[in-house]
Amino acid sequence: MRGYVEGLQQRILAGLEDLDGGRFRIDPWDRPGGGGGVSSVLEGGRVLEKAGVNTSAVYGLLPDRMTSVLGVDKQSFFATGISLVIHPMNPYVPCVHANFRYFALGQDLADPDDEWFGGGADLTPCYPFLEDAQHFHGVWRDTCSRHALADYRRFKEECDRYFYLPHRGETRGVGGIFFDYLRGEAEATFDFVSGAGDAFLEAYLPIVMRRMSTSYGAAEREYQEIRRGRYVEFNLLFDRGTKFGIETHGRTESVLMSLPPRARWLYGWMPEPGSREARASWYFKARNWLKLSESDVP
Amino acid sequence: MRGYVEGLQQRILAGLEDLDGGRFRIDPWDRPGGGGGVSSVLEGGRVLEKAGVNTSAVYGLLPDRMTSVLGVDKQSFFATGISLVIHPMNPYVPCVHANFRYFALGQDLADPDDEWFGGGADLTPCYPFLEDAQHFHGVWRDTCSRHALADYRRFKEECDRYFYLPHRGETRGVGGIFFDYLRGEAEATFDFVSGAGDAFLEAYLPIVMRRMSTSYGAAEREYQEIRRGRYVEFNLLFDRGTKFGIETHGRTESVLMSLPPRARWLYGWMPEPGSREARASWYFKARNWLKLSESDVP
Repeated sequence: MRGYVEGLQQRILAGLEDLDGGRFRIDPWDRPGGGGGVSSVLEGGRVLEKAGVNTSAVYGLLPDRMTSVLGVDKQSFFATGISLVIHPMNPYVPCVHANFRYFALGQDLADPDDEWFGGGADLTPCYPFLEDAQHFHGVWRDTCSRHALADYRRFKEECDRYFYLPHRGETRGVGGIFFDYLRGEAEATFDFVSGAGDAFLEAYLPIVMRRMSTSYGAAEREYQEIRRGRYVEFNLLFDRGTKFGIETHGRTESVLMSLPPRARWLYGWMPEPGSREARASWYFKARNWLKLSESDVP
Repeated sequence: MRGYVEGLQQRILAGLEDLDGGRFRIDPWDRPGGGGGVSSVLEGGRVLEKAGVNTSAVYGLLPDRMTSVLGVDKQSFFATGISLVIHPMNPYVPCVHANFRYFALGQDLADPDDEWFGGGADLTPCYPFLEDAQHFHGVWRDTCSRHALADYRRFKEECDRYFYLPHRGETRGVGGIFFDYLRGEAEATFDFVSGAGDAFLEAYLPIVMRRMSTSYGAAEREYQEIRRGRYVEFNLLFDRGTKFGIETHGRTESVLMSLPPRARWLYGWMPEPGSREARASWYFKARNWLKLSESDVP
C-alpha cells in the first residue's frame, strides 16, 4: 500500500501539472515518533488556485487519544495513505477531495481485525451541474461494480452522511463515495482501494476540462468564497481527520492544507431568489444523481 | 442581568455607530424552545469591516448535551448574555471579543450553586503594540481591583490558557480577562460583571482611535487575512461557545457571527525574517504586558 500510494501521488501530480502548467512544490517531512510523509502543494496556478496532495507512512506507538478512539489495547501501529484536496480558480470548476489509506495495529497481524482500509472521494461544486455529478458518481459506481466487496450504494450513502453540515442543513457538495474499516481479505480489499485510487483522475479531470474555460467575474468569485467558508466550517467543526490531526499534534501545515485559499463570511447571507446561486442549493442535499435527468433539475 | 445586557447592547451600538458613522442592522429572533435574542451587525463600515453585538435571554428545558456537560440533573434553565466581536477594516486596529453572561439552573435558585456568571474580553491585533495591550489590560486590572471577588491575575491567566492554538503554538492575541462559573453572592458578582461590561468601550475605543488612521496597503491586508485564518481556526476548532451553539442547534448566523469577513490560508506561510509580521509573533505568547516596557519589545 505504501508503494502504491507513493506511485499514485506521482501520477496525480503529473496529471495535475499537465492540466495546470504549474509545478507542485514538494515538501518531505519526518515524524518524530516514526515515519514521515511528502506534502506537495501548488498555489496560484492557472487552473488550480490551491491544490495539495499528501502522502504519509507513519508508525510507532499509538497516541493515547487514538487507543481510546479505537478501543484497543495494542500499542504499535502502521498507517499509510494519500490525501488530496483541490480548490480550482474558476468558480465553475468544482473542488475535489479524495483519500485512500491503510491502517495496521500491532506487529504481527495475526488477527484479521488488526488491519483495515478506508478512503473515498467527494466533489464540492459552487455552481453544480447534474452532468458533472453524474460523471463523478458514474466512475465510482463502475469502480465499485468491479469489486465484490465494494457497494457503491452504501458507500455513497456513507459519503452523504459524513459530509453534512447540520447547522446549514446542507451537504458539503454532491458527494461521492466514503468507506472506512474495510476489513477482511487484505489482497481483495487492496485491489478495490487501489482501483479507486487509479480512477481518481478519470473521475475528476474531465469535469475540470469541461468547466475551466467558462468565463466568470467578481460576483462568482464572491459566491465561491462564501461556499469555501462552508468548506472551512465542515473541515474544522466536523472532519474527523482534521480533528484527529490537530489533537494528536500532526504536522499542522499538512493537516490544514485542505483549507481553501480564501473564504468569506457575510452575516445572514442568502442567495437572491431565482438566481443561479439559489438554484445551486438544490444540489446540496443527498440525491441519487445517477437516477436523475435534466428534467428533474428545478 | 437581562435588563443590564439589553441596555449595554444599546450603549455599545451607540458608541460604535458614533465611531464608524454606519448603522447596525438589528435582527431580533425567537428561540423555539423559549426566549430569543437580538443580533445586531454592521458590515462594510468605514472603520468596522464586520461587527456583531448579540444579546439573548433564553429559557426552557436543558438540551441533553448540556445536562451531561454540566453534570446536573435539573431540567430547566435560564440564560442571558451579551456577546460581541469586532473585526476592524484597518489591519493596525485590533479585533476584539467580549461577552458577559448569566446562567441559572432549575426554577427556585434555592442552592447558590444553581446560578453563576461568566464572561471576559480579549484583544486580537494583527500588528500588535505594547501600548495597546497595556491600555486594554490596564482597564481590566483597574476594573477587577474595584471588586473583592475579581482577581485580574487569575482571570488574565485563564484568558491566556483559553485563547490558545496548540497547533500553532500561539495565543489568539494579547489576551485580556476570562472568567466562568463565578458563583457566590449574586449581587456582588453582578456588580463586578456589569462593571466589566461598562468598561468595555473604555478598554477598546481609545485603541481604535489611536490606530484607525494608520495608512496600510495590500500587504498588510493580506497579513490581516492570514491572521484572521487563525481566528477562524480557534473559533471552529476550540471555542466552547461556538461548539456548544452548533451542537445544540443554536441560531447559526448568530453563533457564526464571530467569524471574520474574510480569511486566507497559504500553505507553510512564514513571515519574512526581520519583518513587522515576524516581530508581531513575539506578542502571540502569554506575557505580563503590564510589567513590560518598550525596551522589552524585541
